[in-house]
Amino acid sequence: MMRTRPLKVALLGCGVVGSEVARIMTTHADDLAARIGAPVELAGVAVRRTGKARDGIDPALVTTDATALVKRGDIDVVVEVIGGIEPARTLITTAFEHGASVVSANKALLAQDGAALHAAAETHGKDLYYEAAVAGAIPLIRPLRESLAGDKVNRVLGIVNGTTNFILDKMDSTGAGYQEALDEATALGYAEADPTADVEGFDAAAKAAILAGIAFHTRVRLDDVYREGMTEVTAADFRSAKEMGCTIKLLAICERSKDGTSVTARVHPAMIPLSHPLASVRGAYNAVFVESDAAGQLMFYGPGAGGSPTASAVLGDLVAVCRNRLSGATGPGESAYADLTVSPMGDVVTRYHISLDVADKPGVLAQVATVFAEHGVSIDTVRQQGKDGEASLVVVTHRASDASLSGTVEALRKLDTVRGVASIMRVEGE
Amino acid sequence: MMRTRPLKVALLGCGVVGSEVARIMTTHADDLAARIGAPVELAGVAVRRTGKARDGIDPALVTTDATALVKRGDIDVVVEVIGGIEPARTLITTAFEHGASVVSANKALLAQDGAALHAAAETHGKDLYYEAAVAGAIPLIRPLRESLAGDKVNRVLGIVNGTTNFILDKMDSTGAGYQEALDEATALGYAEADPTADVEGFDAAAKAAILAGIAFHTRVRLDDVYREGMTEVTAADFRSAKEMGCTIKLLAICERSKDGTSVTARVHPAMIPLSHPLASVRGAYNAVFVESDAAGQLMFYGPGAGGSPTASAVLGDLVAVCRNRLSGATGPGESAYADLTVSPMGDVVTRYHISLDVADKPGVLAQVATVFAEHGVSIDTVRQQGKDGEASLVVVTHRASDASLSGTVEALRKLDTVRGVASIMRVEGE
Repeated sequence: MMRTRPLKVALLGCGVVGSEVARIMTTHADDLAARIGAPVELAGVAVRRTGKARDGIDPALVTTDATALVKRGDIDVVVEVIGGIEPARTLITTAFEHGASVVSANKALLAQDGAALHAAAETHGKDLYYEAAVAGAIPLIRPLRESLAGDKVNRVLGIVNGTTNFILDKMDSTGAGYQEALDEATALGYAEADPTADVEGFDAAAKAAILAGIAFHTRVRLDDVYREGMTEVTAADFRSAKEMGCTIKLLAICERSKDGTSVTARVHPAMIPLSHPLASVRGAYNAVFVESDAAGQLMFYGPGAGGSPTASAVLGDLVAVCRNRLSGATGPGESAYADLTVSPMGDVVTRYHISLDVADKPGVLAQVATVFAEHGVSIDTVRQQGKDGEASLVVVTHRASDASLSGTVEALRKLDTVRGVASIMRVEGE
Repeated sequence: MMRTRPLKVALLGCGVVGSEVARIMTTHADDLAARIGAPVELAGVAVRRTGKARDGIDPALVTTDATALVKRGDIDVVVEVIGGIEPARTLITTAFEHGASVVSANKALLAQDGAALHAAAETHGKDLYYEAAVAGAIPLIRPLRESLAGDKVNRVLGIVNGTTNFILDKMDSTGAGYQEALDEATALGYAEADPTADVEGFDAAAKAAILAGIAFHTRVRLDDVYREGMTEVTAADFRSAKEMGCTIKLLAICERSKDGTSVTARVHPAMIPLSHPLASVRGAYNAVFVESDAAGQLMFYGPGAGGSPTASAVLGDLVAVCRNRLSGATGPGESAYADLTVSPMGDVVTRYHISLDVADKPGVLAQVATVFAEHGVSIDTVRQQGKDGEASLVVVTHRASDASLSGTVEALRKLDTVRGVASIMRVEGE
């Protein structure tokens, strides 16, 4: 049973993702209509500058007045692929006020203002979908909030930034240093001219906030996410990782505490065993590992960025939102009922790999071991390497809180015999 | 906003999966209520034999009269985890007639009668969900029919049977033969006393039919699926695979033809390159690789069977179906609008690895090569091994149709110089 009046879609942004959304809406119009139960029509495209030729888009649809477009009142779904906080935020809330549902790919906005946007959607009885905001084409939001709705998620461990995974994979496979690998990523178009958002973990932190919120049915703000970039990772760290049977990945980690009453969310480079499914995620691919009570260990893998993959996620949401409008229903909104405490980084419990430059004389190991013991951090293995008066100690700990480890490191730095802390790396996924 | 009248759930079957569904419904009652927006109540449990103590289930709820239970008229959702065709089929259609929606984990039934069951659900305006029918806990049905609803799926390549993956993984890692690996799988509980459904590919074929139907929006019947078991795979095949940089997996493969007008579905053992993400799927785990126009390559990985994982999938569906009932909507039903031709195995195009036992004399290779050429099958590489009057030829072909390959093999068998065809293995995932 096909309804003939089309659903009207307003597209905000017509860059790499937006143009691909428009293209697929045209080329796959019949499929979309069949899957939705009504045709969808591109009713307007808001851009920053007109005048540029846009393949397959009727120039009459193109406007620079995004606000007027979302206020038209006859728009069924607004697709927001502008990115950034403003004007995206105001446009989305305006869209809800004027009767539209919204599909967004905007991780920064969702991470910062997800709660307010969800509230606006609910007030107006509209949908807010954003599968494309996390890990591009990989279905992740929908599996977490729908497929696992009857389960209890305990941990989400993900490679959610393709740029940094490309760089780390390159360092791992070639022995290159960070700068050299970054230069190659830039040359190949995997890193932007200013790579800060990727390499400093801001992008991954936004995704971690979104994932943690959905996984734990708890509001997790961007400020709640501990963030550490991967610019300090060295070729020496990769050599250490290999000795441990590990590689290094920039991970977004969302965890429920053992007692179940609190959660943490963090982004930082970490060693993971080569046997872990995330270790073999190569190049710019993304993958997210989910651990839950009943399902056990699941992994979702795919391209985490790019015009087509992101458009695929946007269009999947578009179909769902259109179906909802036809049936007069809305999909699942924000679920924050669990309202768990979001604990700071100091409460995170994991293992650590610490490399120390130390004086090459007797008694150093005893001194260092005493410091660990005093801070309640139990040592798993320690390895001494000495050569030409220089010496290093590599300590791998048992599980300890981040606060205890920080205290340990601070005390180690004060020892005369410790010349420097060469690196501290968390060990995950064991 | 919590509705206080509970939604009533009837559970058909209380074995490994059913008892876990009941357990989680009790222990996670508050979470389920919060996520659904109303409490869910276990209103009845149909079993084959009463009298057995069932942990945490009120004996007053247990009945052997499943028909009476689904006919009660006050049941919101029937959860069918009996398996098999009858009485499951009749109970499900009766449930629809009496106003209930249905969540099922029954792959055999869905593969055989999915169309009729979907039609019954639609007639009565009810939901039929069955995430648990394919690959246990791995979200797959929902991603395929919802997340990828705006995309065009071209291929689904999956390890969807844990028993056979355990056996093949064991053969790969230890060099064991099929029987030895099967015995170990049986001893460890990974294989049933009668392993036919698994090792002969019947289980995987049912899943392939379901996956192909959803992926291609086309009805694919169980009879449409080509099926070849893995009982003939030998340790020698694994050695051959290793020489090719491959391993062997039992794959369910659903493909759209190059011209897009037809599809095929098949289950058979195949060599895949070690670099393919499916190659590293170990033990009894399942994984499904999906290739689509816009999203590119996605993979979904997790436990494909077991009480808890299957219960996780069932409960995810239960939450979705309950939400739909509260909002007065139904989820996506069968989508078979594309109505593509389902082509027979002969039309499948892939590469082949063929081992021949041949006479050790001059001219054999020329004869063999002529037969391949006559049938239009182009040879990629050929390797001759001779020793003590015995000789073998290992031929790897370029892409050719299964019909051409079959014709080739038939003609090869007629050659005096060919003593036997030791193995034929398809090569996939390149």
